[in-house]
Amino acid sequence: MESKKILKKGERIDQLYSQDVQIIQNPQCFAFSLDAVLLADFVRPNHRHKLKVVDLCAGNGAIGIFLHNKLGGNFKEVELQPQIADMAERTILLNGFQDRYTVINTDIANINDYIPKDSVDIVLCNPPYFPVTPQSQKNPNKALAIARHEIATDLATVVKQMSGLLKMNGHGYLVHRPDRLAEILTICQKYRLAPKRLRFIYPKPDRDANILLLEVIKDGKPGGIKVVPPLIVHGEDGKYLPAVQELLYGK
Amino acid sequence: MESKKILKKGERIDQLYSQDVQIIQNPQCFAFSLDAVLLADFVRPNHRHKLKVVDLCAGNGAIGIFLHNKLGGNFKEVELQPQIADMAERTILLNGFQDRYTVINTDIANINDYIPKDSVDIVLCNPPYFPVTPQSQKNPNKALAIARHEIATDLATVVKQMSGLLKMNGHGYLVHRPDRLAEILTICQKYRLAPKRLRFIYPKPDRDANILLLEVIKDGKPGGIKVVPPLIVHGEDGKYLPAVQELLYGK
Repeated sequence: MESKKILKKGERIDQLYSQDVQIIQNPQCFAFSLDAVLLADFVRPNHRHKLKVVDLCAGNGAIGIFLHNKLGGNFKEVELQPQIADMAERTILLNGFQDRYTVINTDIANINDYIPKDSVDIVLCNPPYFPVTPQSQKNPNKALAIARHEIATDLATVVKQMSGLLKMNGHGYLVHRPDRLAEILTICQKYRLAPKRLRFIYPKPDRDANILLLEVIKDGKPGGIKVVPPLIVHGEDGKYLPAVQELLYGK
Repeated sequence: MESKKILKKGERIDQLYSQDVQIIQNPQCFAFSLDAVLLADFVRPNHRHKLKVVDLCAGNGAIGIFLHNKLGGNFKEVELQPQIADMAERTILLNGFQDRYTVINTDIANINDYIPKDSVDIVLCNPPYFPVTPQSQKNPNKALAIARHEIATDLATVVKQMSGLLKMNGHGYLVHRPDRLAEILTICQKYRLAPKRLRFIYPKPDRDANILLLEVIKDGKPGGIKVVPPLIVHGEDGKYLPAVQELLYGK
């Protein structure tokens, strides 16, 4: 497909070289960030043909697309905002992935109108990180505000829907902010998701973590969280460190 | 004081050079480990003269002794096992710290017979890490088993007693195992201790964390945990990395 025709006003195509995929972005409403790349990297490979994967709060579908080699089976990308869901549709076409990927343009609160409970192997989610504040509700860019702030959904809803979709022993993957760690672990446990693996991402060697990656297992045995080796994104000089370079550009 | 007379059978004196203190140890019942050094390092300095500090599950009192310069005020070291509490007494004498340090030989469950509720500024704790198993109860070395396994106390009791002792806005410091992170955060919140700062310690660059350090504030505002920079203990060659060298031997 010719890439110029596939783009609407304000959009561009970004490449993730390490996975050899192209993603339609629009900085005015949604563009994937390093968080999406890190979450995809954190997911364990699973090449089963019949795997069912759902990405909640999928945005332009970047995380699912990044996983096209690492996971088998079919992906459903759930996105609330029509304009962004439409970018996800065209991103699938751009990569020629329409046999394995579908976009569902709905609020995750209604997801069980489309996907049955207890039917999914893997649920991914890069949700809005920030609680609603008076400022976030007044944000003139509503699309960006919804992607970043808990305006249209919130952590409890995300976790509840993740749990509802997953089969017993299904795996959920969440990227979020470390300042909400206690709340995240408490809510996961409330909704039958046993936290199993955590990774903290630090922007620089001497800075506090600014991203956490969490793997949960539905109805998994409680306890036994693994805190896997940390990742530091930039060196003191502000440049990406080699491990991050590799995630972005490949070996 | 001459050091030979102060020792009983099986005991030796270890030095923490970075703090210029000496600690009486007995590998047959209790010897401090790197965990104690790391917890002391994690504590924020506070030089108030009237500070009240309590160390629960104090063992030979190493953590409190390590903090003699960083914290002002008075230390109470609470240790259940008489033989170990006695080492703590003699360690205080050995360092000449008897004006600021007292040992209380009791079960932490009874601590309010000695120290009033809501009266303490800082509570430290390096508790037994491991849940009781059939093996741990059969361990022929009972003193070591009690120090390591939740035979005489458990996480819920430790957290409850820490919370009970602390004044509003008092700070608690806990060292524990990352595999119990979810449980630790849940129990702290149950007992009015808001988790505020976390540090993960990794034995080597590519290994999972094996120690966590946690700071809590009694009745602190929920949320807002800081995950501060990680510490890696050994290099690939098995030698202490420079940051750990400095904790042990000073600059």
